Order: sequence, then C-alpha cells, then structure tokens
Amino acid sequence: MNMNVKTEFKYVGTRPIRPDGPDKVTGRARYGADLNVQGMIYGHIVRSPHAHAKIKSIDFSAACKLPGVLATMSADDLPEPGDRKIPGGEVEMALKTFSPVVMARKKVLYHGQAVAAVAATSPELAAEAARLVKVEYEVLPHIMDMHAAARADAPLLHDDVYTQGVDPAPTTPSNIPTQIEISTGDISKGFAEADLVVERTYFVPMCHQGYIEPHACVVQTDENGKVDIWCSTQGAFMVRTLTAAVTGIDIGRFKVTASEIGGGFGGKTTVYLEPVAVVLSLKSGRPVKMVMSRDDVFRATGPAAAAETRVKIGVTRDGRITAIETDILMDCGAYTSHPIMAGVLFNSACYRCENVRSFGREVLTNKPRVYAYRAPGIPQPVVAVECVVNEIAERLNMDPIDFRLLNAVDEGDVMAIGIPFQAIGLKQVLQEAKAHPHYTAELKAGQGRGVAVAFWINAGMQSSATINVSEDGSVNILTGNPDIGGSRASMALMAAEVLGIPVETIRPSVVDTDSVGFCDVTGGSRTTLATGGAVIKAAETLVKELRKRAAAIWSLDIEEVDWTGGMAVAKSGTGLENMNREDAATRGDKTLTLADLAARAGATGGPLCAVASHNAHNAAPSFALNICDAQVDRETGKVDILRYTCVQDAGKAIHPAYVEGQMQGGAVQGIGWALNEEYIFNEQGRLDNPGFLDYRIPVASDLPMIDTVIVEVPNPLHPYGVRGVGEVPIAPPMPAVVTAVNRAAGTRLCHLPLSPPKLLAAIEAAEAGTA
Amino acid sequence: MNMNVKTEFKYVGTRPIRPDGPDKVTGRARYGADLNVQGMIYGHIVRSPHAHAKIKSIDFSAACKLPGVLATMSADDLPEPGDRKIPGGEVEMALKTFSPVVMARKKVLYHGQAVAAVAATSPELAAEAARLVKVEYEVLPHIMDMHAAARADAPLLHDDVYTQGVDPAPTTPSNIPTQIEISTGDISKGFAEADLVVERTYFVPMCHQGYIEPHACVVQTDENGKVDIWCSTQGAFMVRTLTAAVTGIDIGRFKVTASEIGGGFGGKTTVYLEPVAVVLSLKSGRPVKMVMSRDDVFRATGPAAAAETRVKIGVTRDGRITAIETDILMDCGAYTSHPIMAGVLFNSACYRCENVRSFGREVLTNKPRVYAYRAPGIPQPVVAVECVVNEIAERLNMDPIDFRLLNAVDEGDVMAIGIPFQAIGLKQVLQEAKAHPHYTAELKAGQGRGVAVAFWINAGMQSSATINVSEDGSVNILTGNPDIGGSRASMALMAAEVLGIPVETIRPSVVDTDSVGFCDVTGGSRTTLATGGAVIKAAETLVKELRKRAAAIWSLDIEEVDWTGGMAVAKSGTGLENMNREDAATRGDKTLTLADLAARAGATGGPLCAVASHNAHNAAPSFALNICDAQVDRETGKVDILRYTCVQDAGKAIHPAYVEGQMQGGAVQGIGWALNEEYIFNEQGRLDNPGFLDYRIPVASDLPMIDTVIVEVPNPLHPYGVRGVGEVPIAPPMPAVVTAVNRAAGTRLCHLPLSPPKLLAAIEAAEAGTA
Repeated sequence: MNMNVKTEFKYVGTRPIRPDGPDKVTGRARYGADLNVQGMIYGHIVRSPHAHAKIKSIDFSAACKLPGVLATMSADDLPEPGDRKIPGGEVEMALKTFSPVVMARKKVLYHGQAVAAVAATSPELAAEAARLVKVEYEVLPHIMDMHAAARADAPLLHDDVYTQGVDPAPTTPSNIPTQIEISTGDISKGFAEADLVVERTYFVPMCHQGYIEPHACVVQTDENGKVDIWCSTQGAFMVRTLTAAVTGIDIGRFKVTASEIGGGFGGKTTVYLEPVAVVLSLKSGRPVKMVMSRDDVFRATGPAAAAETRVKIGVTRDGRITAIETDILMDCGAYTSHPIMAGVLFNSACYRCENVRSFGREVLTNKPRVYAYRAPGIPQPVVAVECVVNEIAERLNMDPIDFRLLNAVDEGDVMAIGIPFQAIGLKQVLQEAKAHPHYTAELKAGQGRGVAVAFWINAGMQSSATINVSEDGSVNILTGNPDIGGSRASMALMAAEVLGIPVETIRPSVVDTDSVGFCDVTGGSRTTLATGGAVIKAAETLVKELRKRAAAIWSLDIEEVDWTGGMAVAKSGTGLENMNREDAATRGDKTLTLADLAARAGATGGPLCAVASHNAHNAAPSFALNICDAQVDRETGKVDILRYTCVQDAGKAIHPAYVEGQMQGGAVQGIGWALNEEYIFNEQGRLDNPGFLDYRIPVASDLPMIDTVIVEVPNPLHPYGVRGVGEVPIAPPMPAVVTAVNRAAGTRLCHLPLSPPKLLAAIEAAEAGTA
Repeated sequence: MNMNVKTEFKYVGTRPIRPDGPDKVTGRARYGADLNVQGMIYGHIVRSPHAHAKIKSIDFSAACKLPGVLATMSADDLPEPGDRKIPGGEVEMALKTFSPVVMARKKVLYHGQAVAAVAATSPELAAEAARLVKVEYEVLPHIMDMHAAARADAPLLHDDVYTQGVDPAPTTPSNIPTQIEISTGDISKGFAEADLVVERTYFVPMCHQGYIEPHACVVQTDENGKVDIWCSTQGAFMVRTLTAAVTGIDIGRFKVTASEIGGGFGGKTTVYLEPVAVVLSLKSGRPVKMVMSRDDVFRATGPAAAAETRVKIGVTRDGRITAIETDILMDCGAYTSHPIMAGVLFNSACYRCENVRSFGREVLTNKPRVYAYRAPGIPQPVVAVECVVNEIAERLNMDPIDFRLLNAVDEGDVMAIGIPFQAIGLKQVLQEAKAHPHYTAELKAGQGRGVAVAFWINAGMQSSATINVSEDGSVNILTGNPDIGGSRASMALMAAEVLGIPVETIRPSVVDTDSVGFCDVTGGSRTTLATGGAVIKAAETLVKELRKRAAAIWSLDIEEVDWTGGMAVAKSGTGLENMNREDAATRGDKTLTLADLAARAGATGGPLCAVASHNAHNAAPSFALNICDAQVDRETGKVDILRYTCVQDAGKAIHPAYVEGQMQGGAVQGIGWALNEEYIFNEQGRLDNPGFLDYRIPVASDLPMIDTVIVEVPNPLHPYGVRGVGEVPIAPPMPAVVTAVNRAAGTRLCHLPLSPPKLLAAIEAAEAGTA
C-alpha cells in the first residue's frame, strides 16, 4: 500500500450532522421550483403527440392573441448546432444529440419531445397558450422494438447517423450509432477448456432515475446581457456550458446557481428547460420560470437504457472461469449518449479470466434519449453475468461467494481498458459478506437468496475549492458541486482533518458559477474524491500560509514550524532560544492556534484565504456485493424482500452515514428496477405509465431495513484512500434480487422486471409443468 | 516619482458603464428593505421619549398579550460588555460606547435611544405592541449645550468616563472623554513674528449624512446555530464582527450579506438593528425584518459631530504663515467615537508652518452618539481655518490661491503625525484651480466667491479578492466591499489592466462574508486602493499561473514566457526552436490567449483561479479645492449657488466618472451643511426636525451643475498611483460657501448653517449698522 495514504484520522470517519440538515427537514431549503422573483412569468413547452413525425409548420398566432402571452419560441430561435462557439470538441459532438432534445428541429423522434414553447403571466395561461400553438406534423412510422430497429432494412430515425466502431466505416446510415467489441485471449480455446458452459439472455427494461424533484428553473436576463439561472441540477458549471452552447450566448454572460436538489442519479447532468427559459426571457424581457410536470419528466427526460444481454460463461469442474462472452444490444432512445461503452468494458470486471469477448451495439428507437443513471450502462449486462455466475456456482455445487473468491480480480490484474488494478477491495468485500450473519442465516421454505457483486470504475475530473478564514479562526469552504449525498459534511470533515480544527467550526457552502473555480458535475462518484481533493489541497495551502505567518511572528524559518493539532508549533531543535525571541517572549506564545493567527492576520500580511484547483486523475474502482432474501406470494406474484445486506469497498468512508445512504439508496433503486420499474409504450409509441401511480418505485413499506457493511481498502492514489461510492451500489441489486426471486418461486425468469403478473404467469406455468 | 508606478494604461482611466447600473436604474437592485423571506416577522424598537433618564423597569406583559407578538427583548438579552468573547481589544473598547446605542442598559442618554424591542407578524402589529411596552423612567436633567457640559461642575452623563489624554490621569469622571494637543515649534514666537494675526471662532452644527436608504435588515437564524444577516451596510464583515460582539455569538456562526446600499457616507459603518433582530429571531424561531423610519434614522443613528473651532493664524506682510493655533470643542453626543483626533491632527495640514499648536476636546451631551461622515472630524475645524485664510489673503490683498501656493505643503514636508509627505498634488490642484475659467470669471454686484482647500489622510486596511476563470476565458472577480461609488467597475478595470483582457469580459461581484476573505468596511476612501490592491495582486497571481501553464505547453521555463496584451508570448531569445517543439508545432500556437489557456485548463492542472489578501499600508493623502460663487436674496436670506467647481488630486482616477461623482457628491453635501442642515433640539432635548421636510438637504433644483477637474499626481506607494477620493470632497465646501456667501451678503457670519433667517437677520443688522 502507498505509504502516502493517511490511515489515522481525527475527524474523517466520524458522523457529524450535515450542515444542510436543518434546512432540509424544516422545509426551508430551496429546491428548483422554490425561487420566485419579481415580475416572473411562466414558460410552458409544447410537446409532440407523435412518436415520429416531420414538423411541417408551427403557428403561434392563436396563442399570441391571448392577453398575457409575452413570448414564444421554437428551434428557429436557437442557432444551428454547427454555428455555436463553444470550447471543446466534445461539447460540439454532444450538441447534435441533445440540442434537439431541448427543442426539436424539423422532426420529432419521440412522444413528448419539445417542439415549441410559450411564456405567459401565469402557469395556467401558459398551458392554455401552449394548447393553442398549432403544429402541423407529417406522421412517420415509429420503431419501438430495438431488434426491429437494429435490422439493416429498418426505417431510419436519422439520415446522418453512421455506425461508429466498424472498420471499414460504413457508407450508409443506420439506427446503430455505435458498435464496440473487446477481446482478450482466445475465446474458443476458453470455452474448449471449460467443463461447464452456461449461456443465458437477460432483458432489462428502460427505467427512470425516479428523482423526487422534477426539473425546474428560473432564468433572469438583463440589459447588460447577463443571464442568471437558478435550477435543479447536478452541475451548475455544466448548465452554464451547455446552455451557452445551445443558445449561442457566451459562457461569460452566465451565472448559474444550483438549487438544493431532490435527487439526480445521473438524470440531472444535462439541460432541458434552461435554454428554453433563456430564450423566452430574452424575448419577453422578464424572468421566466419553468417546472416540469411528472408526466414531462417521464416522457421527455433521459431514462436508463434498456438492454438485452446474452452471456456465455465457461468454467472448469473446480470452479475456474475459462471464458466469458457477452453480447449486448442496448436501446438508447432517439439519440445516443453512448451508454454502451462501460457495459462492454466492465460487465465482468470482477473476474479474472484470460479469454474474454465482449460485444455491444447501441440501437436508436422512437423513445426518449437515454441518460446516465448511476454506473451508466453497467447494471443491464451485470444482471446477466451475475445471474449466470450464480447458476454456475449452483450447478458446480459451490458456495457462490467461494466461487467468486476463486475468480476474483486483485491488485495487478489488468482491466479491460489495459490498466492494471492497484489495491482493490473485492476479496475483502467477498470475505466480509461471507462472514456476515445474513449470509448464513437459515431460509424457510418458499424463500430464496441471491448474491451478486459488481464493479465500477469511478471518475475524477476537475474541481476547485476556496477557503476563507474569519477573524476568530472559523473557516468557510466554497465548492461548486451541488450537495446530493452529504458532500458539504464530507468537505468539512476533510478540511477539519487537514487544519486540525473541530468540524463544527467549518462552514461549507455550495456556491454559484461566479463564486468558485470550475467544477465538473456532481456525478461519476467523483465529488468526495475530486472536489474533496481540491478542498484538501486548499487546506494544505492554507496550512503552509499559517506556518509562514507563525514563523514570521517567531522569527523562525517556515521549515522550522510544524502544524499539529490545529496549531503552529516550533519544531524541536529550533530550541527555546528561538521561542524566546522578542515577539514570542512578549506574548508568551509557544504555540499559535488558527484562531491566534486569524486574529493577527492583519499584522502578518492580511486576511487568510486559499484556493486550489484540481484535475483528479486519482479515481480508483470500487466493488459492491448485495445479499438478498426474498419470498413470493404464489397467489398474487407479489415479491417480499425479507432481508437485504450491502457490502461495499469505500476506500475510506469520509462520512460513513452518507456512504451507507448511498449503498441503501442504490439497493432500493436496483430492487425497484428488478421488480417493478419499466417504461411501457403503447402501439402509438406513447408512454402509458408516465406517473408514480403506474410507474411503481419502491416505497418504505415495500422494503426491509437495508443493512450495510463498509469495507475500507484505501485507494492508494488518494491521500485519504477515498474511492467513489455513489454508483456501484446500483449494479448488484438486480442480479441478487432476480436470483433470490427465481429461487423462491422456482422460476427461471430472465426478462425484467419480475412484476407480479409476469411472476404469477411463470409460477402457474411452472406448476403446470410448462415452464 | 517611484518608477514602479504604472502610468500608461489601456483600460484604467476609461469610463465603461457600471455592471450594477441596469439593475439600479430598472429597480431590480435589492436594497436593505427589499428582502422578504418565508415566515418572516417584523421587529419594532421602543425608543426613549426622554433625553436623559434612568430605566426603572420594562413591562412587556400588555404587549405580549397581543395575538401575533412572538418575541420581546431588552438589554437583559445581551451579554454585559465585559462578558463578550471577541478578538481584538479595539472592538472591546468600542463595545462600551456602541452596545448601549443598540439597546440602552439601565439608563438612556438621548431622545430616541433604543430601550426595548418587540417582534410580531406584521409591521403594524409590531408598532402597536411597541406602544404597549411599559417603560418606567426616572427623568434626569439633560445637557444639550456643549459648553455647559464641558464645565467642571456639570451634571455627568456617565460616572465612568475619565478624560483621556491628560497627564496625570484624572481621578474624577467628566463629560470630556478625550483631550488632545499637538504642537510643533514655538507658537508664541510664531505669533511674535507675524505682521498680521487673525483670530475667529466658527461653529458647525451636528448634521446627518442624509443617506436616502434607511437602515434595514433581515435576520434568519437556524437550528444549526447559523445566523444569516441581510442588511444595508458599508461592511458585511464589520456587521459580522460587531453583531457577534454585541450578542456574544461566535463570529463563525454568522453569514452576512450586504444588500445594495442607498448611501452610507460613514453612517453605515456600525450596527443598530442587526443585534436586535438576531435576538428577536433566536427567541421567536422566525426570520425577523427591521426597517428604520426616517424619524428613527435622524433621532437614533450617528450624525456628524458639532464643533466650535477657534483659529488664530499669524502671517508676515509678504504672506508667509508664521503660526497656526486651533482650539476645537466637539460635541460627540452621548458616547464618544473619538472624531476629534483627525480634526486636531489635520485641520491645517495643507500649510507649511513651523509653529503650530492644535488643541481639542470632545464633549458628551444628551444627543445621539455621533458617527463618521466623510473625512470624519475634518470639515468642522477646516471651515474655520480656511475662512480665516481667505480673510488673511483679502487683508494682505493677495490672491487667495497665490497665498495658499506660497504656504502649501509639498513632498518632504512633515505631517503632524510625524511622517513626511511623499509626492502629493496640493500645488498642482492649486495651479489647476487658478487656471480654471471659473476662477477668473467676473462676478456681478451682489455676488461673492470663495475658495478653500482641504486635506485627508485616507485609509488602507485589510481586503481580499478572488478570481475565477470560466472555460471560455471570461473572468469573475469576488470582493467583499459593498459597492457604493462604482467599485465593481473599478475592480473590473484594474483586473482588465493586469490581465490584458476587455473589461466587458470581467464580471465583478460583491459577495457575502462566507464567500471571500475578510474585507474591512467600504469607507476611509480605502476600497479602490486596498480592495483594488487585492484584485491587482490576485490578477498578478493568476498571470503567473497562466505563464506557468503556457510554459508547460511549450516546454519552456516560466521565466521564458511573458504575459502581454492578454496572452502568453514566448520571450525573444527562447528562439523558434523552442516554439517549434512538439506541442507548439502540433497546435501551431505562437501565442496562447487567456481563452486558449482556459479551454486547456483541465489538461494543464485544473481550473484557473487565484486569491489574494492584502493589508494596504500604501494609502496616501489627497487634496481638494472648491470654488464657489454665490448670491443672497436680501429680502429672504435665501442663497443661490451660482457656479461651483471642484479640483481634486485622485492620484490616478481608475474610473474618472465615479471619481467625479465622489467630488460632486461631497460638494453637494458640504453645501447643504453650510447652508441649511442642522440638528435642532427643543427644550426637552428632543430633535425637532427629524425628517426631510424640516431637515433640508439640497435637491437638484437648489444646485448648479458641479464642475470637476481631476488632477493626477500618482501615489508613489501604489502600483497604479491610486489615492482615496471619497472623503476629502466634504471638507472644502463649507469654507468656500461661507466665504462666498459672506462676501455676497456683506456679512461676517461664523455660525453655521447660513440659513435664510440667520442670513436675513445679519443682512438687516449690517444694513442697520449694528453688525
């Protein structure tokens, strides 16, 4: 292990109450829809009633006749994608695929796609005006089935999408934007060496992140050209970049303030309403508020991709994996965001195997453009891999954790992306799980148990932090990452650790895009690692400055002064003769606390403050394991989750309660995806269940307490050993639940969700001997 | 002149529109009373009806019975001054004299002093509840006349105030908190050498700063112990420090946001409502709003001191000043803030004179505690000195500017505080004035002209600034100084100058106390100098980082890269062979702009940001001269100001329009003080004119356009040559106006203001030959 990783902590690893807690439990915290400003008007989006159609014309005249309608807009009010001045080619690429999601240009590709917008003096009037906008469509045939869309003779969604990743590059367009294959070793040889080969195909439906808070924003523009945005987002800087890109307005004109956020899970890493509200505000000269309905959220924001994954795994009699082959077909909706990549690269990253072939294709269909949802692209294939692993262990009569321990990757093994693992915690996670009382608890008749593990790579990216010290030595920290999972508390803990002062004397704030250096989104499990890294760096810069100030007071060299326990201390060897120099003697100080130095900041060079910026290249993978006990009501098909335990390697849990929260939240979301959540489209290509009554996410009464075990195998690349913890928890639940349910019910369902009607039919078929 | 002072500028000295302009002219800008928050209630202060009384009891019972009254408070809810934890002895000192202004303890010392407060669900209800608070007083005799108060046998306001500055220290208390004397040379010898000695006594009344916006705040407290304050102030950090001191709550618990400010002029450099609102919020658990009425502002906030100044000046026949003696008696109201100091030290700082004696005493009376008002303590004695100088010049038959030029201080002359002047602009100011067409324009019969000069020392103190660069190279600057006179624009100009980018691409913000390092108040003419200094330093730090990034891209050493014209340029001598290294060749870059480097920030080390903090020891004095033409209506005593010109040394005018604004504003305020403004107390010691109908400040129709001439003699201590410009403009108007008016009317009035009844009486007396 890297000797630079700190392992003894005073503040890190404790569980102080989150600074944002009181505001959130009292209702004072302000979310996206909670801002109201003087003179504000309301935007409303006109959405496509068709799953696929050409837009022939848009007529605003009837809408404009309504008194109180102050602005209208369509894609004609946005620059063509090619015209936009934006730094960075990636954004330019992405623009093509999300600008039409903000506002369709010439054609619509899914039901609910934005076609036009109006703004009026009340929400009701805006809705009424939206109904009066006359859009003439030429309806085109829609394709909802990904297999149908993938066929070479399928009608095309786009005439300018060519499959990437194929050599030679194709000359005819296709509904398959991306194809990717990786392979190591010799897959045929691997299967030839196997004593047992199991091959299955699993389907995972399109599913929504299900954040409680809908997308919402208020945009105010002024005569200086300034554009002020308040919105619910995972990244204020991302909103700034993308809104600038879509509207063609310079980045420097924007100030974006992220509200508190009622969940994002990857779904709030893009813009939907913001560019529309900007245009409506510029045209009306008024602040514009826009809030999505739940129906809008389901129909017109990015769910997770559906996928069908065929997995074929070969093993020797003694349980050694000899070959893994996966083939993924992933439904991306109408525009791609490339969720296939991680799925192809990392679906079996937990296992050491010489012969691997992984193949994947993205397919475009007339559904909403998918977006990130915790460990994007991973849960869909992992359910297949892990269910097959469970089946193999069962058929080999091996304990499924022992089987995994036997095949688990460890330090030095090479990932599919060609980089060897440094210290990782998979084996420790497996061992902890095996030792957990849940794992050995007896099951009653009609109950089933499943386990599953998963891997996630985690992200680093850019972050900044600012530290300002008050004259009493209390500390303010600024970062630019919306606090989703308790990051204010984590930032304060890390700063407390470096500065050696009580965490309660540190106030962390999430500030707007003007007020702190650039920060990438809160996502990719990167915030504690990367923004925390910036906070640690800023605090270290401050400590250096504090040592310098103390050294000046004591007439010592900075190298002669340590910072220990929240105070400057002259090193031994500098001698009392130094400590007794004029100033020290006068004040009698042998130590100088942060408060002492803060009180004397003016006399020693001015106020104490520090900034740090950081491009974190020190992310490290994390592994998670879930154990699920389930039983099935054989008369209704309803599943009861009886007991549930999550084990996960956090590297170092800065604030353990919030790590546990991530584990529990991921488990619950995975359970929902496994059992009930799915997008159901009707024959017209319209979503039939766009609301929480028909789209069923688990509620508290559906679930047992989710037990958690945090494993800490430090990330050797990070000074405190931190790994990302927010994403990997979504990956193990589906296979753990599916295995437990199939075992409890005596079924072999591979088509998720395992909803009551489907289970009931399978149970009845099994009982009738027709399964 | 210091060779380090920059004299060629691209952006500094231009006149871009202020960034806060559109918000201010459209009414969007939010001032102290413009914030409303959910659940807010309203505080109302119970004020003393007596000028001097003991508080025997306070009974809230009737008030508390009113439904909707949620909290009450008195001084009993504040810790005793001695109990307070605060860093810095100065604050502890000041506490004794302003804590009772926030809320009287045991006794009241002026009419309108705060005695108690209530909070209720509407402003009307709070006012009603305040009327129901029963305060029992024991009325004491009040002393309004400062001569009476200064007598040894006068009844005492405080039993614990002993005159400071007297040796040996007195053992009996007194109404004279401070006595100060400075002398150089031999004053008797000086007068003996004089051919002409003129001695006069001038009286200047107590006068209010007259800011348009009253004091207002909203305080919100929460269960974390956080105290959030929104208020109209000249210094958010000052509000934090003082409110913490008065309430006994740790500084680290506070976040203070300064609203836009509708004028301060020194009067908003303390707290009145904030500590009261904090206590009411803590007791009620609700946000509390408090807004002063104009009556409250006049009666209970700090006006400028009244003063009587006796001046005796001796000159030789040829116009050389041989002796200056001044004796100032200054009325400080009920508690002292030591305004006498500057008056004693600097009243004749414009003149080179070997023999000077300056004596001053502060006196306490039953009036509101005085506070700062532009160049505090200076205008009151300067009116006496300058009027006498004008009289002397007249009697010597010398041009008054020639007389001043003959006696003007210059570089190397030693100030009363023992420090020699560096380069100063007094002579240049005098020469510019003499050359101005106004000075030689002919006067008609019945018109008079006066000139006067004045000096102000200016302050430095502590400031911080943060710079964050967006990914398109646009720049955000954060400072903590409320923008009173256009400082956002000035900060942007100085940053533009250092960075070499258009000022329009820089957005300056004034942020709360959490979001930037400590900044002292916007006052003392320090913001452009000191906060600007922090901005310059932060920008220079950023430039160094930009050079480092460019050097890394080009594989050069940082020393081989210059920053010129907003871009990194490889120095000559590094050679094309360096420029053609791999990266430069690939990109073909020979220069890298800020935008280029911002776009590549991630790849070169992370986001671009910088902080700087600064304790500015580089303030330098400024000098101002006014020329006033006046005429007097001999039937009504009304004065018309016919023409008015201000000449002032700005060192370097960063934004000339806002320097001119300071000059014009100071002139107008001084004209008001000379002609009409005064506190009028009745026999009960109650202020008789606490409103703008009876307290007459000049309005636009009272005034001619105020002409301005900016002189620029760079401050050699500042990189751009900046001097403070906000305070000195208040000092010359009174003597210029008084001289002009007396000449126009043929009077010799020495008792300000020269209001119509007084002038009419003097004119009639002069005509009757009784003057």
